[in-house]
Amino acid sequence: MQTKNVVVVGATGAVGQEMIRCLHELEFPVGKLRLTASGRSAGKVISTAFGDITVEVLTEEVLADSDIALFSAGSDVSKEWRERCAANNCLMIDNSSAFRYENDVPLVVPEINAETARGHRGVISNPNCTTAIAAVVLWPLHQKYGLKKVIVSTYQATSGAGAAGMQELIDQTREVLDGGEVHPQAFAHQIAFNIIPHIDKFQENLYTKEEMKVTWETHKIFGDDSIGISCTAVRIPTLRAHSEAIVVETERVVDPNEARQVLSEAPGVKVVDDPENNVYPMPINASENFDVEVGRIRRNPVFGDHGLEFFVSGDQLLKGAALNAVQIAKIFVNQ
Amino acid sequence: MQTKNVVVVGATGAVGQEMIRCLHELEFPVGKLRLTASGRSAGKVISTAFGDITVEVLTEEVLADSDIALFSAGSDVSKEWRERCAANNCLMIDNSSAFRYENDVPLVVPEINAETARGHRGVISNPNCTTAIAAVVLWPLHQKYGLKKVIVSTYQATSGAGAAGMQELIDQTREVLDGGEVHPQAFAHQIAFNIIPHIDKFQENLYTKEEMKVTWETHKIFGDDSIGISCTAVRIPTLRAHSEAIVVETERVVDPNEARQVLSEAPGVKVVDDPENNVYPMPINASENFDVEVGRIRRNPVFGDHGLEFFVSGDQLLKGAALNAVQIAKIFVNQ
Repeated sequence: MQTKNVVVVGATGAVGQEMIRCLHELEFPVGKLRLTASGRSAGKVISTAFGDITVEVLTEEVLADSDIALFSAGSDVSKEWRERCAANNCLMIDNSSAFRYENDVPLVVPEINAETARGHRGVISNPNCTTAIAAVVLWPLHQKYGLKKVIVSTYQATSGAGAAGMQELIDQTREVLDGGEVHPQAFAHQIAFNIIPHIDKFQENLYTKEEMKVTWETHKIFGDDSIGISCTAVRIPTLRAHSEAIVVETERVVDPNEARQVLSEAPGVKVVDDPENNVYPMPINASENFDVEVGRIRRNPVFGDHGLEFFVSGDQLLKGAALNAVQIAKIFVNQ
Repeated sequence: MQTKNVVVVGATGAVGQEMIRCLHELEFPVGKLRLTASGRSAGKVISTAFGDITVEVLTEEVLADSDIALFSAGSDVSKEWRERCAANNCLMIDNSSAFRYENDVPLVVPEINAETARGHRGVISNPNCTTAIAAVVLWPLHQKYGLKKVIVSTYQATSGAGAAGMQELIDQTREVLDGGEVHPQAFAHQIAFNIIPHIDKFQENLYTKEEMKVTWETHKIFGDDSIGISCTAVRIPTLRAHSEAIVVETERVVDPNEARQVLSEAPGVKVVDDPENNVYPMPINASENFDVEVGRIRRNPVFGDHGLEFFVSGDQLLKGAALNAVQIAKIFVNQ
């Protein structure tokens, strides 16, 4: 198998770390692996399944030496290096939102639209975490029944705001339990024992950008902007894995048992749906797993025999970020 | 003003305690206040705004001495005492679900259907907490625009499972932070840093009873079972106040700004909707307040100009229980 040289940009972050893990677990044929981060982390040695690797600062030399660059260092860094990736024939797979809505940048969930990745012009975008987690479950339903309306309410973990978000939840929880004062930094308000219906910036239509990403990105990934999609995105005091309550109206009559069967055969999806035995998706079980859990599958009577309702939990650092990026990279193996 | 003798049945519980507080804060004209609880608590002296009161075990003598009995001691206790309340001409206002679906038992949210309370035959039921919190917000919208579809996703606090639920969250959170083992008792699974899409028993249609209560009870309170209503009910690691993401489709065209105005004039509702300044409903703010907070009011594009989406937070021990019960009692003052 032909190997590929890979650089992980933002290798010391939560997503970067998972990217390294995913390269190994997906048996990506890594030739040389280089890790870059900000100057602060340069020189640090990271122990990986590919050996101990010294963190570098990103340079054009690194790109020239790499076939694929997995970027997870924020939009500004991605924008700064886009042209130099192209100039050095290094494919940028970008976890930021910098280029997602550009017409000639493929936005890819490999279970859904792997073929669009091949038409790239140097950059492929990785979708928003909440979108990717919903999309792998919605896609097989869309293919089978045709989605007409999708209504999403999210339960999003603090790790969506990075390691600092998780740490703030842990520290603040201790403070609240000990009767201390709370000083929010990573979030707009106290997150310990609270929820915040506000993720990313408010748009003119009063939805947040996080909420609109679910609409915009699902349309682009599915290649179908006729589906009515709305979302309320809520930050909750959990550490990892996002959950979503989803109601859909379908074009064709949907049978919940058949839908459960369809989902059980879908790649990237694990049906976890045995309510009699208290088995359903939950963040503590979905965390650190590749598959998105779906359960509580039932007919939604509001839309009659065209209605379906279900609950999903997925690891937003994996399918919502690192795993999906490495899956995109794998599309280009053995070409 | 004519006074009424009141007994609180289940006075030592979380809701019972709030009932005593609400009697005072709503300036209910209490003649004699008696407090009852299980044998375990009998003899305990509770300090109230009405003086120190010794907890008794409920007897027929207590009912004979009372005009109104506020029951919050579970369905079995309510069922056991229903006939004796009637025999002693003591109006039972029942916080349990024991009689809610009986045709001749009014199910009352005073802002909505106070007049049905007057037709009681000895018992008036208090609705489920999640239903009551949504109902005060949905009712003015239903009157103005006509509700056709209502889709609810809940974020429910541990206090919905009583004081034991709150204590389990607190204790378990410490255990998780300290790396200890978790032994769920009040909930089916770990609740610390987790969420559980399962409240009350699963029904044949795979919705839980908690979820179906929102449908059944809203239909009964509104006197309109033509509205399509569905709910996903999720337990989350907060202490108090339930939140709900709600999407509605209306019969008539709805303007979000007008809807905001309608809600700002609705009794029992407080509009908390200034996203630019990070102001929206949150459990930590809604806790211990009488009004249900509503915000994030915006057009839901899935239903075109008939779609509205919003987020509510309300104290489920107050509007969801004790406050609503005392408001029902007040209907009978000065008759």
